[in-house]
Amino acid sequence: MFKKEVYTERRNNLKAKMSGGIAFFPGHSESPMNAPANTFHFRQNSSFLYYFGLDFPDIAGVVDLDSGESIVFGDDVTMDDIIWMGPQPSMKERCAEVGVTDSRTYSELFNYIKKAVDAGRKIHFLPQYRADNKILMEALTGIRAAEINRYQSVELIKAVVAQRSIKDEYEIEELKKAAATGYNMHVTAMKMAMPGVWEQKIAGTIEGIAVAGGGMLSFPVILSQNGQTLHNHDHSQTLKEDRLMLTDAGAETGMHYASDFTRTVPVGGKFSDRQRDIYNIVLAANNKATSMAKPGIPYFDVHVEAAKVLASGLKDLGIMKGNPEEAARTGAYALFQPHGLGHMMGLDVHDMEDIGENYVGYDDEIKRSEIFGLAGLRLGRKLQPGFVLTNEPGCYFIPELIDKWESEKKFADFINYDKVKEYIDFGGIRLEDDLLITDNGAELIGDRIPISVEDVEKTMNES
Amino acid sequence: MFKKEVYTERRNNLKAKMSGGIAFFPGHSESPMNAPANTFHFRQNSSFLYYFGLDFPDIAGVVDLDSGESIVFGDDVTMDDIIWMGPQPSMKERCAEVGVTDSRTYSELFNYIKKAVDAGRKIHFLPQYRADNKILMEALTGIRAAEINRYQSVELIKAVVAQRSIKDEYEIEELKKAAATGYNMHVTAMKMAMPGVWEQKIAGTIEGIAVAGGGMLSFPVILSQNGQTLHNHDHSQTLKEDRLMLTDAGAETGMHYASDFTRTVPVGGKFSDRQRDIYNIVLAANNKATSMAKPGIPYFDVHVEAAKVLASGLKDLGIMKGNPEEAARTGAYALFQPHGLGHMMGLDVHDMEDIGENYVGYDDEIKRSEIFGLAGLRLGRKLQPGFVLTNEPGCYFIPELIDKWESEKKFADFINYDKVKEYIDFGGIRLEDDLLITDNGAELIGDRIPISVEDVEKTMNES
Repeated sequence: MFKKEVYTERRNNLKAKMSGGIAFFPGHSESPMNAPANTFHFRQNSSFLYYFGLDFPDIAGVVDLDSGESIVFGDDVTMDDIIWMGPQPSMKERCAEVGVTDSRTYSELFNYIKKAVDAGRKIHFLPQYRADNKILMEALTGIRAAEINRYQSVELIKAVVAQRSIKDEYEIEELKKAAATGYNMHVTAMKMAMPGVWEQKIAGTIEGIAVAGGGMLSFPVILSQNGQTLHNHDHSQTLKEDRLMLTDAGAETGMHYASDFTRTVPVGGKFSDRQRDIYNIVLAANNKATSMAKPGIPYFDVHVEAAKVLASGLKDLGIMKGNPEEAARTGAYALFQPHGLGHMMGLDVHDMEDIGENYVGYDDEIKRSEIFGLAGLRLGRKLQPGFVLTNEPGCYFIPELIDKWESEKKFADFINYDKVKEYIDFGGIRLEDDLLITDNGAELIGDRIPISVEDVEKTMNES
Repeated sequence: MFKKEVYTERRNNLKAKMSGGIAFFPGHSESPMNAPANTFHFRQNSSFLYYFGLDFPDIAGVVDLDSGESIVFGDDVTMDDIIWMGPQPSMKERCAEVGVTDSRTYSELFNYIKKAVDAGRKIHFLPQYRADNKILMEALTGIRAAEINRYQSVELIKAVVAQRSIKDEYEIEELKKAAATGYNMHVTAMKMAMPGVWEQKIAGTIEGIAVAGGGMLSFPVILSQNGQTLHNHDHSQTLKEDRLMLTDAGAETGMHYASDFTRTVPVGGKFSDRQRDIYNIVLAANNKATSMAKPGIPYFDVHVEAAKVLASGLKDLGIMKGNPEEAARTGAYALFQPHGLGHMMGLDVHDMEDIGENYVGYDDEIKRSEIFGLAGLRLGRKLQPGFVLTNEPGCYFIPELIDKWESEKKFADFINYDKVKEYIDFGGIRLEDDLLITDNGAELIGDRIPISVEDVEKTMNES
């Protein structure tokens, strides 16, 4: 965890942004896999981590937005816990490490909330997405679990988004560590991408690298020779010579800061001419986006420019036609890239997605588009120094979507469906880097994973 | 999945065991990690898998225990799902593979349950431990989520335990596959157990082997040079020359059958005399248990015999004293092994623990002991052919427990506390194999992971 001053300052800044009341942050419990006591890796709530830094289950924190005092509720371990889980510092000691001097037993949380409600104080909380926390909120407030998110605090959401969007130096250090593990994952996957290898074997191996790096995956590995499926968690195929393997994967550090990279490589280590042509278009879009990203520019505009590079490149190949700028603005390109250019990243791979994607990626000035493709963009607002985000253009040939659009004669002025059909078995390409917005532009987080055709082929053919 | 006749027969057998009504099996949903759409590996409910075999989220099954008909409720994929997750077979096709001809949309589940309740039919369900399923049950029945398990069906629990306790040939094949992956995990860990290596690196690497094997971990890896902590998921230490590394880990196959093995090895590859002495006592207890296990013998008795071997060996070293038989029966040995000898294993590593450990491990004839140590035994009842279970004696020196017992002068007639103190920094040893009860005895599942002092040292020193 960071030094205690960091957490104290974050809580003080939160108080300064809010009008009053109580900010309540329930931590996470363990997530049962197939029995109450057989659980997944513990994953703390990210906003709880941001303000309280304590990475263990069954605790909750409050910030009194009037007095400024913080309290953590949680229980000390018992002898039985020591036998099974080892000795642990006391709650008092653990709380002191994050600058909280008032720690109380978990059951006191119920009295605390009840007293606050009885006193007519506003309890601010973020949207709840863990079902056990919804049940907890019902027990605390009397509001039914299924209804609890109707009462989420938009004031708190906006204050948290404002703070968490700007990464400080300590967070950037952690993000670089996550990137280093992500680098190892991707280079390992590249070297394993040979004909006859089971996708699951590669996916499992790089998951192991993420855990061996000190944390866990930042999201379930996407790895497939069917890269045209955007989030393909089916790793059941055996790699074939003429396919491309798309790997979208990243790690979380022990402190839960994320990386998120995508590389697409030719199975066997040598691009065909056709693969290289499409690949270089996507790479050009990626490079264009990095070169444009800087404070003040809406990421929506960067997305449109990258889409223009895609449309223009596909026009050169005879797959698209018409004006690339128009193809980008109307969403005609989205047959080939139905997703957005990127998203915020930090303590979550899609940073703060749990508390509201539109609050994170849009604002009063820039609203989410309703056009297919453009609507998929998770981050559209103006960039600021300290933002961390992904740059991930792609180009996919999705048979079901192509059939649907063709049957609807959709964007027939922009798409040469006959030519598209020649690529129906192509698969998909995505190339993703992680960017930090600086005072003047953007820099990559971590060393760039091999990305040029030459570097990818060289890496794959090294022993 | 197994062939459809297997699932059909299981459902028919369930009907035959039950008095009537409806058996309702809600499947699992995805478990959110840090956002609704960023999830852990999907893990289906084990009893749902046993009767319906369908390994994807947001479905539910019922068996009409009067008519014998089965229905699965779930929705077909949309175009958006295809873009993000790839094309999928229809619900109808998927259900046909497990012998279910009646598939309906998920929303029809609500009408179905309501009609059954209105008709006064009994809805049997198993204990629910996923909070989202508790909320679902509330929506279906009107019973509050926090109260739902008061209405669990003991008749259904007993019928399910009776069926799932006896493993068929197909299940045993899967268990052997899980054992093979577990073998690779443990041999890899042994070879990595060198001074200066970070525990987390080894834990992560073997987790990767589990996933690369086609499935996932069967439980969170326990790996530590502080093996005296029974379920030590803290992998933060760097291995030291004079320590023992305890690794308790196993894999699930893609079909979710488990393995669960423990090995304890000397960091660096060479046991000290003191380590070897304790190690060979635990190994003797393990071998004794395997040799005794057979149909008709209560596993409680096997546990007591293994405890006797432990007490006798510790007496030879001057750590214990008095009559070993009495030390075993009174629980005096439990200072050194506060846990039970083993548990059932199958689709869950602690098989069916979610539906009630006492129904699984005990019966009307053999009740759980209340004596510390003996009470920790998860499986006490008489063994039957087809049972699969673990054999996992251990010997630990837990400083906090030793201090507590000594201050209470507990079992002072059996324990030489002065001598025990010489081992206070020893750590702990556990040795665990998986057993299948046959018609005449027991056989190990899978090849035995190196376990003799000689074989362990040989394996660790191979390049």
